[in-house]
Amino acid sequence: MNRQELINQIQQKKSFLCIGLDVDLTKIPIHLLAEKDPIFEFNKQLIDATHHLAVAYKPNIAFYEAYGIKGWMALEKTINYINTNYPEIFTIADAKRGDIGNTSTRYAKAFFEDLNFDAITVAPYMGKDSVEPFLAFENKNTILLTLTSNEGGMDFQTLKTPKEELYKSVLKTSLTWKNADNLMFVVGATRPEHFKEIRAIVPNHFLLVPGIGAQGGDLKGVCKYGLTKDCGLLVNSSRSIIYAENSVDFAKKAQQEALKIQQEMETILEY
Amino acid sequence: MNRQELINQIQQKKSFLCIGLDVDLTKIPIHLLAEKDPIFEFNKQLIDATHHLAVAYKPNIAFYEAYGIKGWMALEKTINYINTNYPEIFTIADAKRGDIGNTSTRYAKAFFEDLNFDAITVAPYMGKDSVEPFLAFENKNTILLTLTSNEGGMDFQTLKTPKEELYKSVLKTSLTWKNADNLMFVVGATRPEHFKEIRAIVPNHFLLVPGIGAQGGDLKGVCKYGLTKDCGLLVNSSRSIIYAENSVDFAKKAQQEALKIQQEMETILEY
Repeated sequence: MNRQELINQIQQKKSFLCIGLDVDLTKIPIHLLAEKDPIFEFNKQLIDATHHLAVAYKPNIAFYEAYGIKGWMALEKTINYINTNYPEIFTIADAKRGDIGNTSTRYAKAFFEDLNFDAITVAPYMGKDSVEPFLAFENKNTILLTLTSNEGGMDFQTLKTPKEELYKSVLKTSLTWKNADNLMFVVGATRPEHFKEIRAIVPNHFLLVPGIGAQGGDLKGVCKYGLTKDCGLLVNSSRSIIYAENSVDFAKKAQQEALKIQQEMETILEY
Repeated sequence: MNRQELINQIQQKKSFLCIGLDVDLTKIPIHLLAEKDPIFEFNKQLIDATHHLAVAYKPNIAFYEAYGIKGWMALEKTINYINTNYPEIFTIADAKRGDIGNTSTRYAKAFFEDLNFDAITVAPYMGKDSVEPFLAFENKNTILLTLTSNEGGMDFQTLKTPKEELYKSVLKTSLTWKNADNLMFVVGATRPEHFKEIRAIVPNHFLLVPGIGAQGGDLKGVCKYGLTKDCGLLVNSSRSIIYAENSVDFAKKAQQEALKIQQEMETILEY
């Protein structure tokens, strides 16, 4: 999917909501455990109930790997289901990969070609030749961890390097890499005070923003400096939507939670 | 496996060789493609031929994920084969994972419990709460990316932070984390000049050292400052061993290459 198609979708749905599909079998409604593939069934019902309110889905790959081959099969079925039934949706493999060149190419092929995700999250620590293999794929997006929403995000990301904090070095350096137009950046909603400085460095790139909902981030705070004329934001919520209710009505309740966020987004986009 | 068992194995085999099992179906001997599971068959023959010369095997997970469910099954078979037939061997999932707390726990369970690896490589960018979930597992090792062997390793890892270069901050900060005794560190063989300073910070921890062989690193240079009284090194070679020959005799040739390195290691250990 190219950038303009994503922007069109945001404008049509009046939403920049990304829903995290982080499936934990100990948290899903118990009646689903009788299904042949409970993970996929959970995802399918959530997707059917929320696809008109969200522009992106983001399975965190850890939750699938944790179930071994069954998890991997559920991931394949989930991405195929989205791509077949809702091809307008932007799909993100939240994998946080990154390795030396020939190995990153392997990860890129796995997620971009075989699974056909539109985007993958990548860790920057190993630098240019660990990220460029992902950037080489046309109409695919590489979402670089920049300033993350967790407590440990302050351990290294905000350390002062000679010119600026590390996360700003990551932003600036990444813009010099080949095919930097295919970059997006992960910036946690729990750090709204940093969005102004980040937008000074990357005024147009999309930012993937986790951390609203269960992690406590504030949508308005993020939008104040994060929003661009093309929106430029994908704001993710996982637990507060997908685990909103633990009964046969879980998908309906998830829809209601997604609707609340979409309506808030619509107001912000119209403003 | 605990630290002492690893040290015992090094002393018995007079080797600190780790062999990287990075299986690429375009590079393996063509006769193996007729097998039901060519990846596993390739690994099995390599392991049978080299297990007495190596103390560790390190499958890079990217190479398995690239083949989807088939790759994942081959990985399971490979780790089970090692654990069943050569239980003394130290096994490393070269996965370079790292995510927020509850997600890192998922990855840890997948690799430490379900697959039963002894160790996993982890990226430090997200800090304390992304790494401690791995450290919580007893008799399992978390190998933190510190100073990597690739060109891009110089993009951020050697940036000067207020007190020292970033990789040294990573080392020092990680020592303050809970269960830091379960840490090891990835330090590329292509950076032998840094080993002295690294050993000043972590005099006893094991270092996993990629980059000898195909990547050009020098074993003696690494050992000069890297070696401790317990050895303290696991030196990895992948391509120069496993792809030493592309014929029916590939495992025999791999054994010869491994033997050369083991003999060099034996000389160094005796010195």
